[in-house]
Amino acid sequence: MFNNYNVRVSPKATLGKNVRIGDDSVIYDNVVIEDNVTIAHNCIIGEPLNDYYTNPKYENPITIIGTNSLIRSHAIIYAGNKLGDNVSTGHRITLREYNFIGHHTVIGSSADIDGNVSIGNYCRIYSNVAIAPFSKIGDYVFIFAFAVLTNDPYPPSNDLKGCTISDYTQIASHSTILPGIKIGSNCLVGANSVVNHNVADYSLVLGNPAKIIMDIRKYAILGKGRLYPWMYRFERGMPWENIGYENWMNRDSELR
Amino acid sequence: MFNNYNVRVSPKATLGKNVRIGDDSVIYDNVVIEDNVTIAHNCIIGEPLNDYYTNPKYENPITIIGTNSLIRSHAIIYAGNKLGDNVSTGHRITLREYNFIGHHTVIGSSADIDGNVSIGNYCRIYSNVAIAPFSKIGDYVFIFAFAVLTNDPYPPSNDLKGCTISDYTQIASHSTILPGIKIGSNCLVGANSVVNHNVADYSLVLGNPAKIIMDIRKYAILGKGRLYPWMYRFERGMPWENIGYENWMNRDSELR
Amino acid sequence: MFNNYNVRVSPKATLGKNVRIGDDSVIYDNVVIEDNVTIAHNCIIGEPLNDYYTNPKYENPITIIGTNSLIRSHAIIYAGNKLGDNVSTGHRITLREYNFIGHHTVIGSSADIDGNVSIGNYCRIYSNVAIAPFSKIGDYVFIFAFAVLTNDPYPPSNDLKGCTISDYTQIASHSTILPGIKIGSNCLVGANSVVNHNVADYSLVLGNPAKIIMDIRKYAILGKGRLYPWMYRFERGMPWENIGYENWMNRDSELR
Repeated sequence: MFNNYNVRVSPKATLGKNVRIGDDSVIYDNVVIEDNVTIAHNCIIGEPLNDYYTNPKYENPITIIGTNSLIRSHAIIYAGNKLGDNVSTGHRITLREYNFIGHHTVIGSSADIDGNVSIGNYCRIYSNVAIAPFSKIGDYVFIFAFAVLTNDPYPPSNDLKGCTISDYTQIASHSTILPGIKIGSNCLVGANSVVNHNVADYSLVLGNPAKIIMDIRKYAILGKGRLYPWMYRFERGMPWENIGYENWMNRDSELR
Repeated sequence: MFNNYNVRVSPKATLGKNVRIGDDSVIYDNVVIEDNVTIAHNCIIGEPLNDYYTNPKYENPITIIGTNSLIRSHAIIYAGNKLGDNVSTGHRITLREYNFIGHHTVIGSSADIDGNVSIGNYCRIYSNVAIAPFSKIGDYVFIFAFAVLTNDPYPPSNDLKGCTISDYTQIASHSTILPGIKIGSNCLVGANSVVNHNVADYSLVLGNPAKIIMDIRKYAILGKGRLYPWMYRFERGMPWENIGYENWMNRDSELR
Repeated sequence: MFNNYNVRVSPKATLGKNVRIGDDSVIYDNVVIEDNVTIAHNCIIGEPLNDYYTNPKYENPITIIGTNSLIRSHAIIYAGNKLGDNVSTGHRITLREYNFIGHHTVIGSSADIDGNVSIGNYCRIYSNVAIAPFSKIGDYVFIFAFAVLTNDPYPPSNDLKGCTISDYTQIASHSTILPGIKIGSNCLVGANSVVNHNVADYSLVLGNPAKIIMDIRKYAILGKGRLYPWMYRFERGMPWENIGYENWMNRDSELR
């Protein structure tokens, strides 16, 4: 994968130490790849914006791939994206221009993040998720396959309004979040829901249109007990791994 | 992007004036690329049909990319497609054989148009839309992310029936249009609907199965008033841009 | 397509007779490609697993592509997959590691089979289907566009449970099968359903949540009569083609 075959790196790109670029990958102007980053094969990093096609004086905006990140093959990452440290992605992701992706966040295969989106730290955006421009996603948010965040309240319009998804919230497969909707923290949106009203913290919502079923803290399964908030029972890849959420929360905020 | 690196153009292809072909792109036999077209990198134009794999006398049908069109990277466009003028596409589109795509139509990233589909002028097919064979789509139709037009009424069968979507209709994200359904003009199909009956002009439909909610001309939002037909309030990229829909409609039809 | 341009085949790969590898394709270590296989252009066969990125002693597990198979362009097939004979795929499929795909099965464009999945013989997984790890799919199963098989019962968790789909079952577009659900044989799951209970053989189920509508053997359309089980009226590509299902079933099982 790393045979330096057909690799093309712009002389205006900046590569840190211990950076590996896979075969057939292209790095455009003004891309900064920090230390210990792996870009797998067939990736395009710093894809030029629309203006490039018609403006001979076009200059590519800065793109940053944070340290220790892994970008799997066939990614298209437009110019203007800023990815934090320890980001990892599946194959064939599309990041349109000017997204901000936090540290330790995972972006699944074929996810489509459509530009001017902000995603926090330690999120997992699974495969085939589509996120419209101007969406804002907090930290520790998980969004599952084929979920969509929309932004046009009465299509077609120019009155685009991104959704807001707060910390620790889980959005199951095939859900649609309607334009401008705010979903609180620690919510669970069930599979195939259509969310057309704002949702308070700690809500379990389901259906088309989505209805509040209960406070998620009361949700229990026979033999398992109460399951939410989930941070007390799930640690893999989270900053409280091997420490426990409670201990981690009780640390000084500087150490977190 | 246009360094003529790894570009392969069949000697049986025809290229107009001022055509740009991106790096790593392949143009197969009997493709006609008209003037001022840009094909970005990693595109396959004129992908051979199934017969190619087994028939040594296989001949590629004609493919046309109309003047001023822009095909973004990683497209797979099969032989037999006819794209009008001023078409533009996102990344990784798949156009199976023998589609007809009208002038000024936009096809979003990863859209999958499965062959023998007719799409009119000034349509916008957003990312990740899937359109089954034999679908017919009018002019000024917008179809949003993950919407599906199906064609098999009792799967699996050979009795395939495409859907018909008439002019000016909007189909929101995650909607499924069942086989053979006809949706009139100026309709709005809400997010995640399943449309299993024909729909009259000017209908707002929603739900699974979709129900007629109201005449869309009566739909209003506080502070915004009535919003449909949308052509009186949305002009971007439409032929009535800077003129207004009413003035444009009042022109001689020759000038339109 | 087969000009031996940019083709890279590992010296540790094994190629049978009459194998064709398309331009720009890569075959990694320990891939076995059996006789008469066609791999189209831009494919990655035997993509290394995660460990590859960090373990210098990494060894690729064996990948098998069965005889007479056709893998269309831009596929990513991880190491550890075993594909039967006469498999054919669309473009841009993603097969994560250690799937088992039966003989004569068809995998549609952009389908995403996420690893440790078992799929039987003569299945058709259409475009954009997503199948979570640990799913088990029988023989003669058809799954349509954007259907999802999930595996996490209370996200996020480590208690993943794959779905089971039995022989002859049809799952229509945009359906979601919830984690651990078992769907019997000869069922039809309607478009956009969310299946949250196990489903008995011969059921027609529909809706969110999916309800049993009737025994599918009683489902009839005016002028068509009863339509299920479908094997008595649909033969294309099935082993009973030109023989009829009844005659084929009456054969000695050795001849089937």
